[in-house]
Amino acid sequence: MGFSDVCNRQKNTNIRWRLPAVCFVWQLSMIVLFGVFVRYNEESDTHWVDYRKEKNITSDIENDFYFRYPSFQDVHVMIFVGFGFLMTFLKRYSFGAVGFNFLIAAFGIQWALLMQGWFHSLDYTDGKIKIGIENLINADFCVAGCLIAYGAVLGKVSPVQLLVMTLFGVTLFAVEEYIILNVLHAKDAGGSMVIHTFGAYYGLSISWVLYRPDLDKSKHLNGSVYHSDVFAMIGTLFLWMFWPSFNSAIADHGDGQHRAAINTYLALASTVLTTVAMSSLFEKTGKLDMVHIQNSTLAGGVAVGTAAEFMLSPYGSLIVGFFCGIISTMGYIYLSPFLEEKLKIQDTCGIHNLHAMPGVIGGIVGAITAAAATNTVYGDLGLENTFDFTGPFNKRVPTIQGGYQAAGLCVALCFGIGGGIFVGLVLKLPIWGDPADENCFDDEIYWETCIKATELNMHSEQ
Amino acid sequence: MGFSDVCNRQKNTNIRWRLPAVCFVWQLSMIVLFGVFVRYNEESDTHWVDYRKEKNITSDIENDFYFRYPSFQDVHVMIFVGFGFLMTFLKRYSFGAVGFNFLIAAFGIQWALLMQGWFHSLDYTDGKIKIGIENLINADFCVAGCLIAYGAVLGKVSPVQLLVMTLFGVTLFAVEEYIILNVLHAKDAGGSMVIHTFGAYYGLSISWVLYRPDLDKSKHLNGSVYHSDVFAMIGTLFLWMFWPSFNSAIADHGDGQHRAAINTYLALASTVLTTVAMSSLFEKTGKLDMVHIQNSTLAGGVAVGTAAEFMLSPYGSLIVGFFCGIISTMGYIYLSPFLEEKLKIQDTCGIHNLHAMPGVIGGIVGAITAAAATNTVYGDLGLENTFDFTGPFNKRVPTIQGGYQAAGLCVALCFGIGGGIFVGLVLKLPIWGDPADENCFDDEIYWETCIKATELNMHSEQ
Amino acid sequence: MGFSDVCNRQKNTNIRWRLPAVCFVWQLSMIVLFGVFVRYNEESDTHWVDYRKEKNITSDIENDFYFRYPSFQDVHVMIFVGFGFLMTFLKRYSFGAVGFNFLIAAFGIQWALLMQGWFHSLDYTDGKIKIGIENLINADFCVAGCLIAYGAVLGKVSPVQLLVMTLFGVTLFAVEEYIILNVLHAKDAGGSMVIHTFGAYYGLSISWVLYRPDLDKSKHLNGSVYHSDVFAMIGTLFLWMFWPSFNSAIADHGDGQHRAAINTYLALASTVLTTVAMSSLFEKTGKLDMVHIQNSTLAGGVAVGTAAEFMLSPYGSLIVGFFCGIISTMGYIYLSPFLEEKLKIQDTCGIHNLHAMPGVIGGIVGAITAAAATNTVYGDLGLENTFDFTGPFNKRVPTIQGGYQAAGLCVALCFGIGGGIFVGLVLKLPIWGDPADENCFDDEIYWETCIKATELNMHSEQ
Repeated sequence: MGFSDVCNRQKNTNIRWRLPAVCFVWQLSMIVLFGVFVRYNEESDTHWVDYRKEKNITSDIENDFYFRYPSFQDVHVMIFVGFGFLMTFLKRYSFGAVGFNFLIAAFGIQWALLMQGWFHSLDYTDGKIKIGIENLINADFCVAGCLIAYGAVLGKVSPVQLLVMTLFGVTLFAVEEYIILNVLHAKDAGGSMVIHTFGAYYGLSISWVLYRPDLDKSKHLNGSVYHSDVFAMIGTLFLWMFWPSFNSAIADHGDGQHRAAINTYLALASTVLTTVAMSSLFEKTGKLDMVHIQNSTLAGGVAVGTAAEFMLSPYGSLIVGFFCGIISTMGYIYLSPFLEEKLKIQDTCGIHNLHAMPGVIGGIVGAITAAAATNTVYGDLGLENTFDFTGPFNKRVPTIQGGYQAAGLCVALCFGIGGGIFVGLVLKLPIWGDPADENCFDDEIYWETCIKATELNMHSEQ
Repeated sequence: MGFSDVCNRQKNTNIRWRLPAVCFVWQLSMIVLFGVFVRYNEESDTHWVDYRKEKNITSDIENDFYFRYPSFQDVHVMIFVGFGFLMTFLKRYSFGAVGFNFLIAAFGIQWALLMQGWFHSLDYTDGKIKIGIENLINADFCVAGCLIAYGAVLGKVSPVQLLVMTLFGVTLFAVEEYIILNVLHAKDAGGSMVIHTFGAYYGLSISWVLYRPDLDKSKHLNGSVYHSDVFAMIGTLFLWMFWPSFNSAIADHGDGQHRAAINTYLALASTVLTTVAMSSLFEKTGKLDMVHIQNSTLAGGVAVGTAAEFMLSPYGSLIVGFFCGIISTMGYIYLSPFLEEKLKIQDTCGIHNLHAMPGVIGGIVGAITAAAATNTVYGDLGLENTFDFTGPFNKRVPTIQGGYQAAGLCVALCFGIGGGIFVGLVLKLPIWGDPADENCFDDEIYWETCIKATELNMHSEQ
Repeated sequence: MGFSDVCNRQKNTNIRWRLPAVCFVWQLSMIVLFGVFVRYNEESDTHWVDYRKEKNITSDIENDFYFRYPSFQDVHVMIFVGFGFLMTFLKRYSFGAVGFNFLIAAFGIQWALLMQGWFHSLDYTDGKIKIGIENLINADFCVAGCLIAYGAVLGKVSPVQLLVMTLFGVTLFAVEEYIILNVLHAKDAGGSMVIHTFGAYYGLSISWVLYRPDLDKSKHLNGSVYHSDVFAMIGTLFLWMFWPSFNSAIADHGDGQHRAAINTYLALASTVLTTVAMSSLFEKTGKLDMVHIQNSTLAGGVAVGTAAEFMLSPYGSLIVGFFCGIISTMGYIYLSPFLEEKLKIQDTCGIHNLHAMPGVIGGIVGAITAAAATNTVYGDLGLENTFDFTGPFNKRVPTIQGGYQAAGLCVALCFGIGGGIFVGLVLKLPIWGDPADENCFDDEIYWETCIKATELNMHSEQ
């Protein structure tokens, strides 16, 4: 019970001024910045009726809204219910899981509209960001990176820290995304690199900097109870079911979206079987572990992200899913304990197994598939359309594209690790109201709850 | 323990004949009325193939079904899962919350198809109501008003009373909607006035007439347990996520739906931050209160309803959300206790804070935005399209439109309050099988449950 | 405590080799078969851009993806969340309900793509199955039959048995579907016959063969607790809400999908009221039973499946829903105990009441509606389009069609019962790791759980 322990106990988790201040100031900033910069684009503005006539667009149904809105809503569900409920598995951190996920996503999407807007949707004629449905989807995507990172630090940080993490995370995301998609002209429809690799290494690096040697003090709360595992399955299933929409949401109109949905559907189906197989194989009596079913079943969706809109072919998708289910489950069994003990990375939700490894695999699969693309398989027009070999990139060929895809993966890794270490150091400052080691994984710290002693005892496992 | 208490204890909550009788008779009436009045419209009838040829419609995708079906399904989820689960927060009234919500919504949508059909979809050539996807959405909308009202009386009424409340509520709704949208020609895409203001004041007035001075007798059940709060978050999130679909579902094809979705997305994001800020600011130790997170985060969606399809502009939406988060949370902290103690309005779910105040704000925002509309901002065609300044209304200008919008708000208020008082008096008749004061908020009264004494003790907080 | 009891206790439920082996071998087989047979179709292949030009298709929005993707995602939710959560009502089998449902559906959709592909989507020019969004929907549909069957044996079989059941179930499904839809040219958009009748009798026959006379030993687990009933309502509601998408997902473009959605919406609304009425009427004190609300409210969706795309007319849909609510609830009250005691059919979820009877009714309603179709009601073109009286069937008239519809129902029944008995005998082999009678309905057998004795006691009802 030395000095560090005394410090720890004195930790002030009263965020009464800090949290409201951050929320108000940041939201006011958003209003000012939106006022200066953000306007409707030509498809969401009342001038659409004029634009339609002018451009000879035959029907309102050609508005991008109808191509993407169903996918957008599915993605939206993944962000708020999917990620939120996936993290409710802890017996006493369901409020924090779903509530803080809600908070940081709601902030993040606004900041993402601005950051991504400056890079991608700035109208140079009037200096305004013009937004439409695709921007909303991209904002949701951008936030997904930060929510993945939240999975690594779940239960160990304050909501103020989460907001800071989101502010920096979205900023870093927008820059790496610009480099990968625009400068390198890599393709990444489902974000294996841009979203998952970046987000996971961002979170793992933060968790590494914030390492808590005495986290064992709250280990009685670092586990699930029966019903919290069922709640988590709501998150798992909505992520799993809507992942085809995630990977196809911003793919090319027509065959691009169509193919991305099919590839993702197949990869995910395959992952479920190998996850179940591995989970059963590595338990002494062949029983299944809910942690694997909740998480590793999703790895195929992550790994097929980059290549989803390519001609990966149906069996290719199955193969990707097959290996990711194996690798991800093995990660939970062998790698997570190793990361925690040897590398000092405490990863509450195991995002290394669900997002980091499958994300990197996805980047590699994307690079290989791109490099192997041929005119025979894609057709001349199809090849040009799928990889956007137009404008300044009209000389690029598939093999070169493969190289740029691989370069994109490296950029995502660098931004994730570098950015995470930097933000981790910022979050180490003793001003953010994070919980003491013995109060981790406990909603009592940040939420009004009416938990009876009896109820708590019943649910704990000491 | 006087006379009223004795009466109270003798309350007969056996609804074995009353509930089946109402269900059967009303459902049979629906069948007869649908048989006489309701037919498919030209887009859902097999004659569509002829109609297409005749009207030179180039593709099946121009069928209104494809413009609105995704939004319809989202609205459907809000009605049944959103409203239903939002009310599951009570520790022992989750069956009633989700089950009675299911019952009255299922009845209400049928009755709404008829009532709204007579006003809006009557084909005068053959005296039939012709229905298509837009009618289904409007029926869901209409029922939303009654489900909002249910929030005020949750746990204190019998299912028979709820059905009566829905019968009258839908009827009143159809009339006020006709007056507001057709006679006054006000616009209200997301129903801030027509749905939320009307529904909330309807419910609050009923609750006022049904005031129970001795409701304290069941106060041990008027609260949440840990997992019931997590269930309620399912409702919150599905409402929050799909609200862009709600506000855009019946907006104009093309830019109208597109813009309504964007405005709602932004307003809701903004509301989350100010709700969290206020919740934390007003608790002694800065902790968050689940009641606020579950409810006030939705206020922005309500308030942006009327103006969602206008050129509110992105920052305008953020501003609306900003203030509604503050006002709604303050309502839970200060106004709800005041309403209960001074005005004798017992509002179980706090619909005054979630629907009434934001609804009125939405009506005012709509009036101001309409009055401020200019040809420069909207374009000539855009202005005409957005406000439907055509036919008998082709002389109307924005400033005048603003006045009619404000008039529409007053109509909604009058119908809500007046109708609520009338229906409250009907529901006061001692024939409906409502629970005694000590049995409020208890599923045992109307549901077969197998709750063990031990389990109940554990969950109660005496 | 005779010999059979000793045998029973010695049952080996260690599936450590069997489950992984089946998962790996079958998934590898899928990869090989997909490699040999499955390719993208013309709408999901990069050659779509060429195809569009060639066929003079004016817009990408005419890609079948945009007609069917929103419905597909809704169906996907029904399969994984709907069926999965509907079965979570048992107090200690929620992991098995939602987890094994996930496993068998993920396997089944792959096998279904192959089986249905060979029958329906084989391109004879190159011997490949060409898949697009409609194939994904049909695969989900096919799996629905097996998930219905799972409802009958819930809690009494091992995951290996479930996989075997799915393998055979999908195979049988593909054959009976081919006979019904292609050979008999019957119509069955929502699958009352093909999915529900077949699936239900398949499951009931299996359960009959696997009859357990001593199932009473685990009857303390064969029931619900408060929160497990709320979880089950998630399943109920997502099934109920998205059923219009289920019945319209593969209906004809345009009016076909539109009408199917309307009919289903109405039938389901009607069912809710009669279910509530019957549930209340048959309990001594008029209380409602969650089992009925969770299940019988869905019967209308089943029964309107075949006729959903016909001109059933709105009141016709209400009538179908009306009777199905009554019949299904009566089934739970009277027929299920009879089936168990007299016919030795143990039907955990009561699929006889939710799928079998309404499915048969749906087939009959379809036959009658088809037989009664007239040119006046449908229009000449409409009649031809709705019933596909083209090609080899261009001489068929409605009355004859009605006969073929009825024949289709018989085929579904025969395949369900015959196939079920055969598969039941296969599953009786003592090699599949199924639980002993006293371990039925218990997640402990196949899942790592950390249930404390105290918690278990609290939830059980001995």
